[in-house]
Amino acid sequence: MARMSDCTDPRFREVMTSLVRHLHAFLREVDLRPQEWLAAIEFLTATGQACNERRQEFILLSDTLGASMAVVALDQARALRCDAPSAASATEATVQGPFYWEGAPDLALGCDLRAAGVAGEPAYYAGEVTDTAGRPLAGALLDIWSGDGEGVYDMQVEGQGMTLRGRLRTDADGRYRFWSIRPTEYPVPTDGPVGVMLKRMGRHPMRPGHIHLKVSADGHVPLTTHLFGRGGRYLDSDAVFGVRDSLIVDYERHEPGTAPDGRRLEQPYYTVRYDFRLAPRSGDPTDPR
Amino acid sequence: MARMSDCTDPRFREVMTSLVRHLHAFLREVDLRPQEWLAAIEFLTATGQACNERRQEFILLSDTLGASMAVVALDQARALRCDAPSAASATEATVQGPFYWEGAPDLALGCDLRAAGVAGEPAYYAGEVTDTAGRPLAGALLDIWSGDGEGVYDMQVEGQGMTLRGRLRTDADGRYRFWSIRPTEYPVPTDGPVGVMLKRMGRHPMRPGHIHLKVSADGHVPLTTHLFGRGGRYLDSDAVFGVRDSLIVDYERHEPGTAPDGRRLEQPYYTVRYDFRLAPRSGDPTDPR
Repeated sequence: MARMSDCTDPRFREVMTSLVRHLHAFLREVDLRPQEWLAAIEFLTATGQACNERRQEFILLSDTLGASMAVVALDQARALRCDAPSAASATEATVQGPFYWEGAPDLALGCDLRAAGVAGEPAYYAGEVTDTAGRPLAGALLDIWSGDGEGVYDMQVEGQGMTLRGRLRTDADGRYRFWSIRPTEYPVPTDGPVGVMLKRMGRHPMRPGHIHLKVSADGHVPLTTHLFGRGGRYLDSDAVFGVRDSLIVDYERHEPGTAPDGRRLEQPYYTVRYDFRLAPRSGDPTDPR
Repeated sequence: MARMSDCTDPRFREVMTSLVRHLHAFLREVDLRPQEWLAAIEFLTATGQACNERRQEFILLSDTLGASMAVVALDQARALRCDAPSAASATEATVQGPFYWEGAPDLALGCDLRAAGVAGEPAYYAGEVTDTAGRPLAGALLDIWSGDGEGVYDMQVEGQGMTLRGRLRTDADGRYRFWSIRPTEYPVPTDGPVGVMLKRMGRHPMRPGHIHLKVSADGHVPLTTHLFGRGGRYLDSDAVFGVRDSLIVDYERHEPGTAPDGRRLEQPYYTVRYDFRLAPRSGDPTDPR
């Protein structure tokens, strides 16, 4: 730690000093054996080499050790400290996960994210985006993604283009609405080093069904979150520790007929109502966000 | 941590529980920002992807954070606990580093590890290998490697075969002798992610000059260590924290003439005397070494 006396970046020095202290405390606490150290080196190397344009095994590692969710929670807690008390009622954030794909198509309000042939039962999502005082936010951006009704993401299918992804903006009253599928539980990728780790830990690799959303509006702290379906499996043992009670929603089932937006459905469908609340951004110019 | 309740490997559970606790304590202590987390993900990914058959950037990372030396020191301290008091006088271990290349040629005692054209001043190394009670160990194996007189290892030169490497065995009296070069200081590789990290930490990448040896004998704890030259640069700021006072030796300079082994030298040369002491291996069948 003393060797960093010439470091000119105080924050980097602070972070690395803490990292070195905890790293060495860990090594001493478990009295790590050389062959265990070597196994760790080989694991980390394999994790780096499993990464490519469409796969980020280190994010998956961070997710499955709860580190990603910890960083998300710390970030949101920091926002609360800056913007309290109004931010205290902001929608809870959760992990981004490895399947975000920048540049989803801009779609019209009310559109259907499902393409022909996509597996999954239809679900109509609607609600509003407001600030933490309840004022509607017009033109707020929702960037939405999910796996299909079998839990498979487009990125996991070689050669498949974007599917079940889209970006849309709230109307003048801060309202949003779109069709997608009712998501189902699925495993995180288990064919890489992280899968081996989970197995050795005696853990299952499953995530409860969820749909991802990034919600943002000018002057407000951007939100990355999920909605989970109430009563679904694995809500109490999400492999990436992403579940928050406030993000569990009801998927209300309907028989075939006319949906709330006037669309005729020939099959059963679900409706979901959820309102997102964004915290006003702090005016503090030193705010790192 | 509770999610590991189905883990059937108690040691793995112990290690991972400690790792998770320290990882989260670190994240909270520095209140790690999302962009810092992402920088860490990108750094770890790049570190994994910099690894190949001849380069191990994660070992270099472990070395430069002092983790490798900590594991070496813990390992040797464990040997002392098992084998005390005789092991207390064993030669100190230090890091292996990234340049060990298994399968160096078996050479005769007294041979010269230098090939034609290798940079560096000649040095004659001699001494004995004993157990910690001072009993000579006949047939002990010395596996020796170093960079050349400019600090460059064979592995760092594209297409170069093994150079300045060799394995030899002590004679019936436990004695060894060989020619190599007098090593010089050199930087650890700085063209990868670890080089960027060192620079941001305000640290130089230099290691003091040293020659590497693995010394082993049946029934004894194998030793991986270095010899460093007294008075050399960077002895107090080795980039990988490998220096131990007991491993600093004198390179005694001689004018051209007849060396101790009768060889005629047309240039100045050095002699080094060092005795290695190996700890008897514990009879404990649960000893993990």
